[in-house]
Amino acid sequence: MEVRPAGSEDLTVTFDDVRAAAERLRGVAHRTPVVTATSLDERVGAHVFLKAENLQRIGAFKFRGAYNRIAQLTPEERTGGVVAFSSGNHAQGVALAAKLLGVPAVIVMPTDAPAAKLAATRGYGAEVIMYDRHRMNRAELAASIAAERGAVLVPPYDDPMIVAGQGTAALELIEQAGPLDVLLAPLGGGGLLAGCALAATGLSPGVRIYGVEPEAGDDWVQSWNAGEIVSIPVPRTIADGQQTQAPGALTWEIVRPLAAGIVTVTDDEIRAAMRFAFERLKLVVEPSGASALAALLFGKVDARGARVGVVISGGNVDPATFAAALATPSS
Amino acid sequence: MEVRPAGSEDLTVTFDDVRAAAERLRGVAHRTPVVTATSLDERVGAHVFLKAENLQRIGAFKFRGAYNRIAQLTPEERTGGVVAFSSGNHAQGVALAAKLLGVPAVIVMPTDAPAAKLAATRGYGAEVIMYDRHRMNRAELAASIAAERGAVLVPPYDDPMIVAGQGTAALELIEQAGPLDVLLAPLGGGGLLAGCALAATGLSPGVRIYGVEPEAGDDWVQSWNAGEIVSIPVPRTIADGQQTQAPGALTWEIVRPLAAGIVTVTDDEIRAAMRFAFERLKLVVEPSGASALAALLFGKVDARGARVGVVISGGNVDPATFAAALATPSS
Repeated sequence: MEVRPAGSEDLTVTFDDVRAAAERLRGVAHRTPVVTATSLDERVGAHVFLKAENLQRIGAFKFRGAYNRIAQLTPEERTGGVVAFSSGNHAQGVALAAKLLGVPAVIVMPTDAPAAKLAATRGYGAEVIMYDRHRMNRAELAASIAAERGAVLVPPYDDPMIVAGQGTAALELIEQAGPLDVLLAPLGGGGLLAGCALAATGLSPGVRIYGVEPEAGDDWVQSWNAGEIVSIPVPRTIADGQQTQAPGALTWEIVRPLAAGIVTVTDDEIRAAMRFAFERLKLVVEPSGASALAALLFGKVDARGARVGVVISGGNVDPATFAAALATPSS
Repeated sequence: MEVRPAGSEDLTVTFDDVRAAAERLRGVAHRTPVVTATSLDERVGAHVFLKAENLQRIGAFKFRGAYNRIAQLTPEERTGGVVAFSSGNHAQGVALAAKLLGVPAVIVMPTDAPAAKLAATRGYGAEVIMYDRHRMNRAELAASIAAERGAVLVPPYDDPMIVAGQGTAALELIEQAGPLDVLLAPLGGGGLLAGCALAATGLSPGVRIYGVEPEAGDDWVQSWNAGEIVSIPVPRTIADGQQTQAPGALTWEIVRPLAAGIVTVTDDEIRAAMRFAFERLKLVVEPSGASALAALLFGKVDARGARVGVVISGGNVDPATFAAALATPSS
């Protein structure tokens, strides 16, 4: 299918773009394993296939989209480099992809970003520019840097090439696991879900696709119910990768017709899913990365007897947050 | 090669037995993924392939050997069932394998075994018999239970079929990663290392094989240096799966001619390896399971420029122990 949001002729993305992204990522991104567990199947009464994107390069799916975008820069654009604003996985995805492609990268991060994420981003060779999140607008700052240097802004999700890149996670999952009846993916800005929806509906017709967001940050649910994009204040949730305030324009246009619905999970359910992944799967999963698994474990969608794909989207979590989640009794 | 310890004509095990075990385990054991990480390769200056047996059924390689042993019971033996003594991964391996094969299982565990391990073992349908470790000899108890019920004792490592089963981990690793120059595996009783040595020397001639044990429990190093089996007191180490007091008779006979050497790691090095696996690999690894990775990270063997296989042998660790290891500064 081709999606063409009103007023932006450039913003088209199709299943073929996901396939092309997969070719670009071959031998560059990890083909992450699909993990299965009898204990999980028995608990939810389904056949569950977990796509372990926490084992992806940089520890999250974000590398896929960033690489797919930066690989398509023109020779002139490469010279000017790329700029991105993020304190999370997108920063590391852009930094690593740029390094591999020999493109200079500037990452705009808040002054209070965790030291570990700063170090990781610099470790991939990116230049980090700090901003005071209380006094400056990061999008304006990034835009001015882009203008000054002739750099290309790499957005975190609302971009056809980013969406196509993220969709390769579901493309691989279905190649590895076979056709799915249900697919669950975490939902922040919507890049992962949009790309996965394009791939899954392309490969596995009839699949029911659900996005999962934290209850405290239910901008997608509100938008879904309103039938149009709704913005919310910055949500307070343990799921730091899902603190977006509104669906993206492009991702919304893709997700709305393709998804079966959007469900929410509480922070406690997310912690329980992280603990389940620790105890039964032996995987380190970050809060946002565990949200789709939480939705399955806590019965937010009807999955009984189905072949269910779940994207475990990332594993970048600091030790203290992880230890605190483990200390939460599982249910 | 065929290994025939003096005085025990039955105790033979060959590379062909490992191949036969792999056939028995096909579709039953997980073909666990091989994990690679640029950060690890850069740190140690080698090409490293991690066999993630923490993602194996029951969370450890022990399922392989147990299943291979129990699958070869005669019809009469199946009726009497199996008995094993273990408070660790062997208990769960035997319990699950017996359940899958429809064989009754008794597991003898100490009264102070962790509640989680008790529950997991019972969860696989095994009957658990408790004993007071200060007042009773578990081996004698297990033997008397075996005699009473006509059950077959499944030893944790010193058995040809157990050894052959464990060796399938290295067989798969080399099938997945290609030939290796160096192979590192954790060493307790020696079942894993012996089996992996048979497989690796069979598939990858010239490979240098190292066993890794905790410094506090260096029964293999002492035996290696003495040229004969040496026993030590029960060691105090975080690596609860490597608290054996002496090499097995069979495993010693296999390992001695095939291994290049035995190296040790400290408990702090093990904790650092667990933290490295958390931060960079997103894998939950138990202390014993991290020992071979620790040896590589801390330069215990010369691996520069080599293709190095490392067995991550298990991931069954309680949350408190794991959180404490994460709180240890990495080096």
